[in-house]
Amino acid sequence: MLDCAIVGGGPAGLTAGLYATRGGLENVVMYEMGMPGGQITQSSEIENYPGSFREDPPLTGMELMESWPAQCMHFGLKHEMKEVSSITKEGDVFILKVGEERVEAKTVVVCTGSTPKRAGFDGEDTFFGKGVSTCATCDGFFYRNQEVGVLGGGDTALEEALYLTNICSKVYLIHRREQFRAAPPTVKRVMENDKIEIVTNASIDHAYGDQMGLKGVEISFSDGRENMKLDIPGLFVFVGSDVNNGILRQEDGSFLCETNEQGQIVVDLNMKTSVPGLFAAGDIRIDAARQVVCAASDGAIAGMQALHYVQEH
Amino acid sequence: MLDCAIVGGGPAGLTAGLYATRGGLENVVMYEMGMPGGQITQSSEIENYPGSFREDPPLTGMELMESWPAQCMHFGLKHEMKEVSSITKEGDVFILKVGEERVEAKTVVVCTGSTPKRAGFDGEDTFFGKGVSTCATCDGFFYRNQEVGVLGGGDTALEEALYLTNICSKVYLIHRREQFRAAPPTVKRVMENDKIEIVTNASIDHAYGDQMGLKGVEISFSDGRENMKLDIPGLFVFVGSDVNNGILRQEDGSFLCETNEQGQIVVDLNMKTSVPGLFAAGDIRIDAARQVVCAASDGAIAGMQALHYVQEH
Repeated sequence: MLDCAIVGGGPAGLTAGLYATRGGLENVVMYEMGMPGGQITQSSEIENYPGSFREDPPLTGMELMESWPAQCMHFGLKHEMKEVSSITKEGDVFILKVGEERVEAKTVVVCTGSTPKRAGFDGEDTFFGKGVSTCATCDGFFYRNQEVGVLGGGDTALEEALYLTNICSKVYLIHRREQFRAAPPTVKRVMENDKIEIVTNASIDHAYGDQMGLKGVEISFSDGRENMKLDIPGLFVFVGSDVNNGILRQEDGSFLCETNEQGQIVVDLNMKTSVPGLFAAGDIRIDAARQVVCAASDGAIAGMQALHYVQEH
Repeated sequence: MLDCAIVGGGPAGLTAGLYATRGGLENVVMYEMGMPGGQITQSSEIENYPGSFREDPPLTGMELMESWPAQCMHFGLKHEMKEVSSITKEGDVFILKVGEERVEAKTVVVCTGSTPKRAGFDGEDTFFGKGVSTCATCDGFFYRNQEVGVLGGGDTALEEALYLTNICSKVYLIHRREQFRAAPPTVKRVMENDKIEIVTNASIDHAYGDQMGLKGVEISFSDGRENMKLDIPGLFVFVGSDVNNGILRQEDGSFLCETNEQGQIVVDLNMKTSVPGLFAAGDIRIDAARQVVCAASDGAIAGMQALHYVQEH
């Protein structure tokens, strides 16, 4: 029986492991199929993780995470490169299906994150992390006083476009339909913002650039207008995201714990879910800020709470 | 008029400034009378801030915080070494009393923290951060398989004593009264724990040691027993803490925003207080985990939310 099973090996999972083991829990396993580190390892620059900063050249996500696994495993956390396919609870015990194995645990910390959807245009993967981004808070500043594009027409796309107007000289808001699917006050603020140029009925055909990164995108229109090239070094794609909550799905189709409409796990300030002993941390939870430091903090809290829970039971 | 006034220059305040300015806010001032860095700078060892780790010699709190101010001020955050004595709100505008000055701000992030009380015995200050600690989660691990003391008789003291039993070989729980003031189930768990030795009707007269740190404490008893020496390299003091919420006190004695019974600021997952435009981050808020990474995360969230608030108004 594990004291604590951690599912996911990004900043949240690693830090949950650090705090649980350093606090004295002995059987703590973090399940992560690949190398630990999470989404940030795909990022070419990070300058907003406090305490880790290099101006020139900027720190890469891979460099930031380089020292984390050793530090977090220093106190006894075990990493297993196995896939967890489901989590259920029987009485006081959590049952994880790990490959063909059945693993029992007293507590579980779920930190499987969320995955931003790709738009699917040619070159998107090539320039991902080198101009194509899914996080304005993370990457907007790298395009200070430059022109950038935002792809999408929902609340997130419009909010992030507004965010980028604080930093960038111009924001092209590219959307495949005529109308936006965002809240009316947000649409109004976008319409009134001089720095946003709206490009509707538009799809990105392909992105171009070189080994330094993105240089621009070619856009085609569904209303018969001629194709257009936009020379932009940054493109932010907000076409939805998948919350990686599949492992919480129960046989009857419900989730093990309470989730919101988007499938994000409902937690309180202590990262407690609606199920005692089950904690969530990082991008899978409601109101996640999608920042490395925030995921790490969630993990720290969840790790400490898992320890308290084991002590009390 | 400031876009954002940040009160307090620990990990929360610094990170709030980093995120607010990097996100595009231009008039952001952090008020901190001393050097930025916060409580952690008094700590001789820190090994649970992810990404910053050195095994031998361990990183000091001062070293951890060394690079933070420059990184956090790189994007335009200004530091003013002035004391804020009060915050009020008139209409949509916050009014800060800064020395004799009156400063207006659209948003405020309060991160003035809390201050653990000192017990007042001889040598407490000398060995603070070198054996005497006020945080078991932070420092317990440094006394792995060793004997330590816990001073106090309330919930925190007993909970932290239990926490330490996971790590240390023995925990002396030193309390000046006969009875504990903690929740009955906690007292019961303490009583049943073989690793805890209860030392009641006891006060610490003085702490002794050398330049390497604490070596032990001398205890006197109110019930006439002879003085006793305890050779312990670690002593955890939990005799209450002061929440630094004085600046939120209004003329009528109430607080500017909702607080709990301990005077901690009530926040939601977005660090929003009950007053629009006012955010709280770090140890001053409810359910604070008292960890650097958690304070930094709070600051990041509050900084982003302050930015959103300014954009929307």
